[in-house]
Amino acid sequence: MKRAALGAVGAGILGNSCSSESSAGSASVGSDRSKKYRWKMVTTWPPNFPIIGEGCETFAKWVKTMSDGRLDIKVYGAGELIPALESFDAVSNGTVEMSHGCAYYWAGKLPAAQFFGSIPFGLNSTQMNAWIIGGDGLEIWRELYEPFNIVPFPAGNTNVQMGGWFNKEINSIADLKGLKMRIPGIGGNVLERAGGSAILTAGGEIYTNLERGVIDATEWIGPFHDYKMGFHKIAKYYYSPGWHEAGTCFELGVNTQAYESLPPDLQQIIASASLQLHASIQAEIEIANSEYLTRLKEEGKVEFRTFPADVLEAFRKHTNDILEELAAEDPRTKKVLDSLNAFRASMRGWSEISERAYYDLMG
Amino acid sequence: MKRAALGAVGAGILGNSCSSESSAGSASVGSDRSKKYRWKMVTTWPPNFPIIGEGCETFAKWVKTMSDGRLDIKVYGAGELIPALESFDAVSNGTVEMSHGCAYYWAGKLPAAQFFGSIPFGLNSTQMNAWIIGGDGLEIWRELYEPFNIVPFPAGNTNVQMGGWFNKEINSIADLKGLKMRIPGIGGNVLERAGGSAILTAGGEIYTNLERGVIDATEWIGPFHDYKMGFHKIAKYYYSPGWHEAGTCFELGVNTQAYESLPPDLQQIIASASLQLHASIQAEIEIANSEYLTRLKEEGKVEFRTFPADVLEAFRKHTNDILEELAAEDPRTKKVLDSLNAFRASMRGWSEISERAYYDLMG
Repeated sequence: MKRAALGAVGAGILGNSCSSESSAGSASVGSDRSKKYRWKMVTTWPPNFPIIGEGCETFAKWVKTMSDGRLDIKVYGAGELIPALESFDAVSNGTVEMSHGCAYYWAGKLPAAQFFGSIPFGLNSTQMNAWIIGGDGLEIWRELYEPFNIVPFPAGNTNVQMGGWFNKEINSIADLKGLKMRIPGIGGNVLERAGGSAILTAGGEIYTNLERGVIDATEWIGPFHDYKMGFHKIAKYYYSPGWHEAGTCFELGVNTQAYESLPPDLQQIIASASLQLHASIQAEIEIANSEYLTRLKEEGKVEFRTFPADVLEAFRKHTNDILEELAAEDPRTKKVLDSLNAFRASMRGWSEISERAYYDLMG
Repeated sequence: MKRAALGAVGAGILGNSCSSESSAGSASVGSDRSKKYRWKMVTTWPPNFPIIGEGCETFAKWVKTMSDGRLDIKVYGAGELIPALESFDAVSNGTVEMSHGCAYYWAGKLPAAQFFGSIPFGLNSTQMNAWIIGGDGLEIWRELYEPFNIVPFPAGNTNVQMGGWFNKEINSIADLKGLKMRIPGIGGNVLERAGGSAILTAGGEIYTNLERGVIDATEWIGPFHDYKMGFHKIAKYYYSPGWHEAGTCFELGVNTQAYESLPPDLQQIIASASLQLHASIQAEIEIANSEYLTRLKEEGKVEFRTFPADVLEAFRKHTNDILEELAAEDPRTKKVLDSLNAFRASMRGWSEISERAYYDLMG
């Protein structure tokens, strides 16, 4: 019996503060409360990025309130202190105490990390949360980051994303031939094996590149964030579903020494606030996507499409090949993939007769 | 534009501590930290109830750790201090400071409450979280409980439950005639309109009643909790999906004066820990249900069934009738139902092309 009730979850989510709870319980009130901590949080998001970057600011307020001002975290958007993709290193080497982002951004350095962000044809958010928060996902994630001096916490989930904006209609695998699409990570590798070209484009340049035909297509997040980027003004087709990002998890990464230097109450405050942030971002994105999908439909300028079945099957086959190759090259990737596959196999039957059956029932 | 980013969510989830954050931020460290609070939490769960009751104990540990021992909450199972269904009154009149349970338990006193627990053919957990945490659900919930002197917080979700255990096979609406089933609340009313009898049975007596044929069927939760009750030993058929409870939300109810008597840091600690509990219970139940479904299948003694389409359509029609009748009788119920229906209508299109489409893709 793997399940160990909420105790095991508690242990995972609590992290170090689980063992220190008993000392907090037995100690009299009055640990050193004069000490103030001023921390920096860098993020991979543009400054004031809706819901997600804003959520980090709210997280900092929660922590400040709960700690009565003793832990004061200043949040920086991407590029304000360091470039987005350098946040992992900045936390690792202690330049800053924490970061918010997504684990697949560190795939170049640590291929196994991306499983804790998102992989194509991966878990949806209900399953991802069950694996990370309720299963052994968090423990494996922590082991993986330990040599890098970082303690990860789940801190947001997008739910199912959209498949992206296209100026060419995709009716068969042949239409992928030569397709230039902005799609990073394994999703990009999959597209290349299917005959397309994955183009690297910084967030701020996607719009111009799509408008000028430098790229034919781009993925981003979902109706809400995509609308803010303006893609509906310059792309003809909006494809679903997001086969490449079905339950993307965000992370809060804390420098290990910084975390361990905190008294138990502040450690637990970070752990609790991170899961509050997780649930809040997930709920907020879902309702915002729903509202902006309605808006896009009312405006009537975009044509909605779903990927043809043979295209999705090709994407799935290439994904499986790539994951197996990554696992063959790297024992850490193999360990994560094995855990994920075991979880997925055990979850399939239940999802089928519960969530999926109920979606059919809702009509 | 209803969406107001995480600020609105923050305001909701933060409750009173949102406005007091600024004072915490500007005040120097050193509010009165010598004061200790000893609180009682009653629950509607049997003592040590797996995942859910255990989760309440873990919640109390989180709060104690975060508050450095200043807020010490003792958790009581149902009947240890007061009977399960009296917890709402006990919090309302200040006998205890808080409770954990489900809002549909207070339907007799406050019919509108059950929308914040679960109604038949209601929202699934992803949608329920979007409505309560990301939308206007929490605000309406707080307004509803305000006259009763209780501040509610979301504190768990079961995801889709099972339809229940049956010793008669249900092949058509005719098979519901005279069916004696333990199913409380609106679900029970629906069964009665469909020709069956809803039998009230305390949790501890369900097993014996089912074994002796006093009832023909019972619902409970899902594979994990149901297995612990032993229903697989005495029932022949296990039906899905749980049309009557698709995303049941749990609640933490806090006595308003007790909540307001807390300094801002302790208020926020309760708010954050409740959402941590929410996400933890949801993840834990999902993985446990998956594991116990596998176990039931391996044991091979239970026959799995799905309700016939005409039975489900009859259940849906009766549900809609009952909800409309409740709303016609009670303006508070009407307000909640209107919000829920508006949310559901706006969410349907998005769920269809995101979560549901992805379930089809996962195969």
